[in-house]
Amino acid sequence: MHPHRLFRASGHDLFLDLPLAPWEAVLGASVQVPTLGGPVRLKVPAGTSAGRQLRIAGRGLPKPQGGEGDLFAIVQIAVPTAASERERALFEELAQASTFNPRGHFAEEAAK
Amino acid sequence: MHPHRLFRASGHDLFLDLPLAPWEAVLGASVQVPTLGGPVRLKVPAGTSAGRQLRIAGRGLPKPQGGEGDLFAIVQIAVPTAASERERALFEELAQASTFNPRGHFAEEAAK
Repeated sequence: MHPHRLFRASGHDLFLDLPLAPWEAVLGASVQVPTLGGPVRLKVPAGTSAGRQLRIAGRGLPKPQGGEGDLFAIVQIAVPTAASERERALFEELAQASTFNPRGHFAEEAAK
Repeated sequence: MHPHRLFRASGHDLFLDLPLAPWEAVLGASVQVPTLGGPVRLKVPAGTSAGRQLRIAGRGLPKPQGGEGDLFAIVQIAVPTAASERERALFEELAQASTFNPRGHFAEEAAK
């Protein structure tokens, strides 16, 4: 295994970008995450946002004085670039059903 | 308008994080984007991924020799943290319908 290129180090902690499908972030999920010691299962809580850091204790780098740093999985939301007809239809239903406004802060900044 | 805190500068170009709902990225959308000269409409192509940079020509900083840099909108996908029952039901249908694997590169790295 050479998962090292997936990780960034800061001190003894490691950081990993963790792409989630939108439904995994909204509904919650159990996902497999690579670590230097092999893959582990990580529970993603329902309602997880992009940018959230999920901590996996003790999966960072070894410390000279003993123990290990932590691994932080940084949530990103990814979408299929080529959606099937069925997926497109469901996303269209979501667009109709949802009142979600991902750019509310644009208007807030403009009003300041 | 004080949208300046939304922008990062590099030379004469400006960079702005542009959060999109999953359906906007998948289906395409026309979204309003703040610029230093006021909001403009930006066309987001269907099948746009997180991390993609959409260029808005001439909306950067003025150059001493004349002309302006560009504004780059960096796509991020955002999800509702508190989804309605209807949204949850549609996301559950998507989870069933989709074969999308946002973490394919984890397995590829492990196999190298």
